[in-house]
Amino acid sequence: MSQTRSTARLMDGTALARTTVAEAAASAAEIKRRTGVTPCLATVLVGEDPASVTYVKMKQNRCAKAGIESRHVTLPASVSTAELVAAVTALSDDPAVHGILLQHPVGPHIDERAAFEAISPAKDVDGVTMHSFAAMGFGEPGFVSCTPGGIMRLLDAYDVELSGKHAVVVGRSAILGKPAGMLLLARNATVTYCHSRTVDLAAHVRQADVLVAAVGKPEFIYGADIKPGAVVIDAGYNAGNVGDVDFESAAERASLITPVPGGVGPMTIAVLLAQTVGAAARQLGLDGV
Amino acid sequence: MSQTRSTARLMDGTALARTTVAEAAASAAEIKRRTGVTPCLATVLVGEDPASVTYVKMKQNRCAKAGIESRHVTLPASVSTAELVAAVTALSDDPAVHGILLQHPVGPHIDERAAFEAISPAKDVDGVTMHSFAAMGFGEPGFVSCTPGGIMRLLDAYDVELSGKHAVVVGRSAILGKPAGMLLLARNATVTYCHSRTVDLAAHVRQADVLVAAVGKPEFIYGADIKPGAVVIDAGYNAGNVGDVDFESAAERASLITPVPGGVGPMTIAVLLAQTVGAAARQLGLDGV
Repeated sequence: MSQTRSTARLMDGTALARTTVAEAAASAAEIKRRTGVTPCLATVLVGEDPASVTYVKMKQNRCAKAGIESRHVTLPASVSTAELVAAVTALSDDPAVHGILLQHPVGPHIDERAAFEAISPAKDVDGVTMHSFAAMGFGEPGFVSCTPGGIMRLLDAYDVELSGKHAVVVGRSAILGKPAGMLLLARNATVTYCHSRTVDLAAHVRQADVLVAAVGKPEFIYGADIKPGAVVIDAGYNAGNVGDVDFESAAERASLITPVPGGVGPMTIAVLLAQTVGAAARQLGLDGV
Repeated sequence: MSQTRSTARLMDGTALARTTVAEAAASAAEIKRRTGVTPCLATVLVGEDPASVTYVKMKQNRCAKAGIESRHVTLPASVSTAELVAAVTALSDDPAVHGILLQHPVGPHIDERAAFEAISPAKDVDGVTMHSFAAMGFGEPGFVSCTPGGIMRLLDAYDVELSGKHAVVVGRSAILGKPAGMLLLARNATVTYCHSRTVDLAAHVRQADVLVAAVGKPEFIYGADIKPGAVVIDAGYNAGNVGDVDFESAAERASLITPVPGGVGPMTIAVLLAQTVGAAARQLGLDGV
């Protein structure tokens, strides 16, 4: 019988998210006090996919608790790209709305990119537009994609040195893997992007000082492939609250590791709220808040 | 006395550029025949930096030979960001101009990003805007940065398989290293970005099936570090027509290698011309040309 012993320190996303949301709430209250305006996040939901409905409700509840107003737009699953673009554009043009979140997915018949691009970069608090991606790539001012942004905040909260470290990102989605790599590169990590076509993934994982698993396959990465002392960020969310990393075996080798749940997950919404308040402050001319 | 023997096949950028420019010239002629309009590239030069003056003149000469009109805007080194942005915006708004090239560098007192962003994405034939970068990252339609675009054309011309290969990009500039990595990732390579802060660069270089050297340091990468059989793309241009790779030693191990000069260099202008003609075709409603 083998004995499993965790040696890694846990990166507590629940606690860090609590602090982040508390700071956002304090800023929201300060904005309200100074301008009379309550920061407002507009959420747009297409159709009635139960998971999406749940996500949006959760985001609205968290907004309410942080003193952020939310406005909800629901569109039928049959909505056309033009109608969706028009609805998002109206929110971009509405001065009472400070941030916009278009819940993904929007349905296969819709040009999702066109819908995302209707979000004004100034209100792209979910970090999904081409402008936001390029801003992350170029180190220009802009909003970050929320999950990668949450990952960076976790790394910073646990004082993880990134400069010169080899960060291996497994996954290359537009809102997670790709921007995560760009943010790590901006912090002077050497960055490797792995994905479904990568040959000998384990050989790459074994080199990672910082591993970001963002592939969406349950317990896809094993502890035996983790470099001893590595920092392991599990951004996977799979059925049954299971991450992309086999936690028990990985925790035996990593120095720091995010649990699932309670790691990256809570940080995503926290960054969304923080960026909504930041957007409101900027739009109201209160950059210092 | 050691005997140097080249075993790598040369990737002939001069020849491929000739073909690429000939195709662009044929398309330009066809556009002229069908619409009466000559494709037009506007070049913008700030100040009188001799290297920049030479580059711009070379680009204009190549345009002329390919049947592409060029319009030149020279601004004094003392120009303000606002004035430069206004000049570029005027070109973006001018229907007689199909492509815009703002020669880098524009001077330290100018917000170069703001100037680049004044280029309409539809006319960004040099691939320098945030929109173009994100399009490369997301696989969306758009123009590519010319040097990375030239590299991809070279790889394709020599039938280099990219899917599943490990591509190591040394350098992370906004117009070369970063977009080159994105284009390689879009073609399903596993991509590693190395740069000045990378620890043990040689260890990364040794793993490259495809190496893109884009660092701007003469003969910085040695043959001893090249994986036998690798494809070596030297995008460096240093004083004395010397690349980033030590050619003699690298050629003994690589299967394919770009010479300097005559490799990547000629492809950069070729892609610029090809994209200018493509931009003109699109703007004139002739997508099939």
